[in-house]
Amino acid sequence: MTVSNNTPVSGRFLTLEGGEGVGKSTNIQFITQLLKKQGIDCLVTREPGGTELAEKIRELLLSDHSEPVGELTELLLVFAARAQHLQQKIKPALAAGKWVLCDRFTDATFAYQGAGRGLNRDVIAALEALVQGELRPDLTVLLDIDPAIGLARAGQCGTPDRFEKEKLTFFERVRKGYQERADAEPGRFLVIDASAPLSEVQEEIERRLLLSLNLSDQP
Amino acid sequence: MTVSNNTPVSGRFLTLEGGEGVGKSTNIQFITQLLKKQGIDCLVTREPGGTELAEKIRELLLSDHSEPVGELTELLLVFAARAQHLQQKIKPALAAGKWVLCDRFTDATFAYQGAGRGLNRDVIAALEALVQGELRPDLTVLLDIDPAIGLARAGQCGTPDRFEKEKLTFFERVRKGYQERADAEPGRFLVIDASAPLSEVQEEIERRLLLSLNLSDQP
Repeated sequence: MTVSNNTPVSGRFLTLEGGEGVGKSTNIQFITQLLKKQGIDCLVTREPGGTELAEKIRELLLSDHSEPVGELTELLLVFAARAQHLQQKIKPALAAGKWVLCDRFTDATFAYQGAGRGLNRDVIAALEALVQGELRPDLTVLLDIDPAIGLARAGQCGTPDRFEKEKLTFFERVRKGYQERADAEPGRFLVIDASAPLSEVQEEIERRLLLSLNLSDQP
Repeated sequence: MTVSNNTPVSGRFLTLEGGEGVGKSTNIQFITQLLKKQGIDCLVTREPGGTELAEKIRELLLSDHSEPVGELTELLLVFAARAQHLQQKIKPALAAGKWVLCDRFTDATFAYQGAGRGLNRDVIAALEALVQGELRPDLTVLLDIDPAIGLARAGQCGTPDRFEKEKLTFFERVRKGYQERADAEPGRFLVIDASAPLSEVQEEIERRLLLSLNLSDQP
């Protein structure tokens, strides 16, 4: 399978989203390889983080602290990291015509800080507009799974961070938050059932991603 | 001099502001002692910082980084620290009727990030409303000095942080930003000429602060 025509493909902004244990790490590698086979080199990055300073902010967000972390504090830290990441890495790459593949972005903020923590979504939308201007992902792959299954999977991978320590009900709200985002923008979201065996998940990602990006040989 | 009547004095929120080398550290101690003589114990704190997490954010703000720190990143970090500080320390103290004396607060954000960095003041005002709600300082002591003199004084005190390394023109904008804030709210601001000898500065602070707080024996 190759790029279906010879016109230069300009940079696109892809994001991968999902709760705990959905297989984001494995599948971001899969998507990277998939695009590489199409002759597309992706800048692979993640949020919160992606630059040295933004990764330090990530550390503050994920670490335990001797005091409760305020919900608004958390939200502002997330957007501080995003502002830095956008300015230093994502925007320059897109401006240079590169593709960017980001492990979590603002949909995660609506899901985790909005639906999960209960923060007002208008506030999140206002910060999104402030930090991103008009910039939104072109395409978002949402790996969807029952959080009970996801958490069982995630539990096998090392010490849980501040978010991973949340209760099941938190992750149920996060999942619902993601689903609402996907329902509201069906043209941008590819929702993939991540409870299926990995090979099936990846077949589904490959088929639908290439189709959405007009990289498929299929009609 | 004592509190001029016997009615219980409810908590007030005082801030001390000014650019580099105006003598904030010395004078915050002076004000603390001055209030103590009036029988008022102040919670003395500072921004950015004031809690363990907020102090970690301060460290990110003041440190040098291998990448340029975006103006919006800086602004969001400042307000993230402020949200944490307010929730964990300032609001509980005020709610308990305590007095709070804070070394820099949101006027500094308007001066440094607004006038200094050139960030839109409406954006700062929107974040102020988001993080503080209706809460504003009851009284603000602004130590004002020609930045050329202030920087020469500050230069005698150790290694400069990321802000202290800025050029004179930056601090001239900061000073102007502070002055505009004071002009707009003359009832809240006590502007003190900090270029005078320390004893005169402190006499002036004492006289005007006690008068403004109705703690003076003078008519």
